[in-house]
Amino acid sequence: MPTRTLLNLSINEDRLWSTLERSAEIGVGKAGGLRRVALSDDDKVMRDQFVDWCKSCSCTITVDAAGNIFARRAGREDGLAPVVVGSHLDTQAAGGRYDGILGVLSGLEILRTLEDNKIITRRPIEVVNWSNEEGARFAPPMAASCVFAGFQTLEWLHDLHDDDGIRFGDALSRIGYLGEAPVGGRQLDSYFELHIEQGPLMEDKETSVGVVTGGYASHALTIVFHGECAHTATTEMKKRRNAMIGASYFLAAVNDIGWEYEPVGRASASRMIVWPNKFGILPEYTEVTVDMRHPERNVTDEMVAKTRVALTEAAKKANVDYEITAEWTFGDEVFDLDCAQLVRDAATSRGISQMDIKSIAGHDAYYISRIAPTALVFSPCIDGITHNEAEDVKREPTIEAVNVFFDAVVARADR
Amino acid sequence: MPTRTLLNLSINEDRLWSTLERSAEIGVGKAGGLRRVALSDDDKVMRDQFVDWCKSCSCTITVDAAGNIFARRAGREDGLAPVVVGSHLDTQAAGGRYDGILGVLSGLEILRTLEDNKIITRRPIEVVNWSNEEGARFAPPMAASCVFAGFQTLEWLHDLHDDDGIRFGDALSRIGYLGEAPVGGRQLDSYFELHIEQGPLMEDKETSVGVVTGGYASHALTIVFHGECAHTATTEMKKRRNAMIGASYFLAAVNDIGWEYEPVGRASASRMIVWPNKFGILPEYTEVTVDMRHPERNVTDEMVAKTRVALTEAAKKANVDYEITAEWTFGDEVFDLDCAQLVRDAATSRGISQMDIKSIAGHDAYYISRIAPTALVFSPCIDGITHNEAEDVKREPTIEAVNVFFDAVVARADR
Repeated sequence: MPTRTLLNLSINEDRLWSTLERSAEIGVGKAGGLRRVALSDDDKVMRDQFVDWCKSCSCTITVDAAGNIFARRAGREDGLAPVVVGSHLDTQAAGGRYDGILGVLSGLEILRTLEDNKIITRRPIEVVNWSNEEGARFAPPMAASCVFAGFQTLEWLHDLHDDDGIRFGDALSRIGYLGEAPVGGRQLDSYFELHIEQGPLMEDKETSVGVVTGGYASHALTIVFHGECAHTATTEMKKRRNAMIGASYFLAAVNDIGWEYEPVGRASASRMIVWPNKFGILPEYTEVTVDMRHPERNVTDEMVAKTRVALTEAAKKANVDYEITAEWTFGDEVFDLDCAQLVRDAATSRGISQMDIKSIAGHDAYYISRIAPTALVFSPCIDGITHNEAEDVKREPTIEAVNVFFDAVVARADR
Repeated sequence: MPTRTLLNLSINEDRLWSTLERSAEIGVGKAGGLRRVALSDDDKVMRDQFVDWCKSCSCTITVDAAGNIFARRAGREDGLAPVVVGSHLDTQAAGGRYDGILGVLSGLEILRTLEDNKIITRRPIEVVNWSNEEGARFAPPMAASCVFAGFQTLEWLHDLHDDDGIRFGDALSRIGYLGEAPVGGRQLDSYFELHIEQGPLMEDKETSVGVVTGGYASHALTIVFHGECAHTATTEMKKRRNAMIGASYFLAAVNDIGWEYEPVGRASASRMIVWPNKFGILPEYTEVTVDMRHPERNVTDEMVAKTRVALTEAAKKANVDYEITAEWTFGDEVFDLDCAQLVRDAATSRGISQMDIKSIAGHDAYYISRIAPTALVFSPCIDGITHNEAEDVKREPTIEAVNVFFDAVVARADR
């Protein structure tokens, strides 16, 4: 039975908006955007603010050893496994105000609305802020939810290093969020994540609620090219082993592969580290990270196979060696049909437009879907712009999506 | 008349070698090499050591506002313009023990040999250490000799910034080498620079002395590509404006242009700065520096014209904008025939193998040749390896070259 009939409540949209605005003051980046990368001072300020907000609505705060924060509001049958709701508060280096943030603060708004109305759900509800979803500072992305779900060890997470050589574990400790709780290993009733679409489809169809039915099959590789330092002037072309040239041939080929599979397929390069990276000296070391994405896994595999061929050819052309130092895949996840149906029912009951959609980007929900029934819900964003300071949303469809999300979460928590 | 007949002296080769070895202890880099980039703490230690050495052979030290150090040994007719001898003590980030260093320390050894033998030359001799020849930390290279020769202003030099945003002027002041003497604007009788060849030709021909008759016509450009930040997953290929992909297409094309002109021509890329340079976000900013070199200026011009076409095409293909933010040429310099002849005569007189040669790399001598009669002299290095920690020389031909250089400098100073 649709939830709204049960509660007939809506969230407080002005309050939600003011929390989003407060968040947008912490870690201000380029005009209108945020630069609140994981485990930075700004991340700490935002975490502290989030914890304060949660404490004032009867929540118990738990921080685990991955820095994930869980704000738990007790249920009537508090021994039952919790419904977990959330996303992430960290941003890209040139990110926006909504990516991840909307999901965490909507979770907070759900708790506040329940608190306002003195409603205790049957199951406890926990709002989570996952550490380092973006992977902007510590690659790979979704690293802490990955550990929570048991696909990497805590030691692996703590040993990730940023570009300045700082360890994840040390950075986490420095901001005071190296918690004592174990990471994962406990039962969740379900997991709900609300996220902006980060694409244009919902806006194009004027739809407020996107029920995510699966992800794009994605495959990422980090490659290091090894060449040799030499003088740019005096070294003949045939004696050169310029690692950066190997990387350049490779990235040009990766982009061409993306074009072969457009519009739905895409191949990306976003990062290059060069050493010594000085005028006059051919670089001996270059590291790049690329990713390939397509809705169908077999097509993504084909793109990756072409990428490997291009890699061998690029290295040969530049007379350099290479090694693949990291490789990861995601996006094959299938979300829970029952949880998705709760979202669809809530939208129907409220008379709000909805559509099924595939996620192209990765989300913490991907990992959590492997250990608990999971719903990933999208709200529209303007022009599909994201990972950019111009990322923006329209208030009306966003509020509609949060209300539908509220209904679905409460329905699950009362089940 | 050949000089050796006049003096019949040789330098103290063990002493020269021990100064080279002491230098190799300051700013130790990768195994066997140096990382003594301009205005670093290690550069300061090396400068202090050089000044100490010079003071103990009756020299007066002057530091100018570009940080150039002049160690002057008075002449019999001390009002005459000085013969200046030197090179640079800074190194690449992964440099060797001889590039530049041999030239400065050979100058010192000349003064010491004169001092040992109580010889006062007619003209004063000044040994110079030019600041920031490599341009490894503060691009462009040869920046301080450029200002000395009047081709840039002191303000321009002081306002160069390193990759961490530190100003040249501030860094120079910090190490205590922001001198009070004006930069240039005074008459030099002549300038002599001894340098390792940084190529394989002399070793191939088993020749100890290279008389440089001119430089490779060189042309460098710094280009900034402007794109737009966006999510690597959700942004369709046709909506992308990935600045790093523009740079990758460009650098691949630059390398191909180099191959068109091999073995004598070459095109190089050595440096790429990407922002935000994080996994998951298409970069909006990418800066690269490239250079084209060929013995003939008209061929270099042709390479540069092709490079400009490739630049336009690469930017178009990646749907990004670009701007050329810096551009410089060098290598058309013609060295002084009389000074060169002094070197040739000295080699003949000593019975040491010699050849005429063109310089491919840039040297401080290029700028100084525009304001004073200049000789650039090469000694061989092993396998032509340079800007690499494996840079090395054989002692015997090196000592032969230093002795010839000594003869030529003293001959000029006594003229």
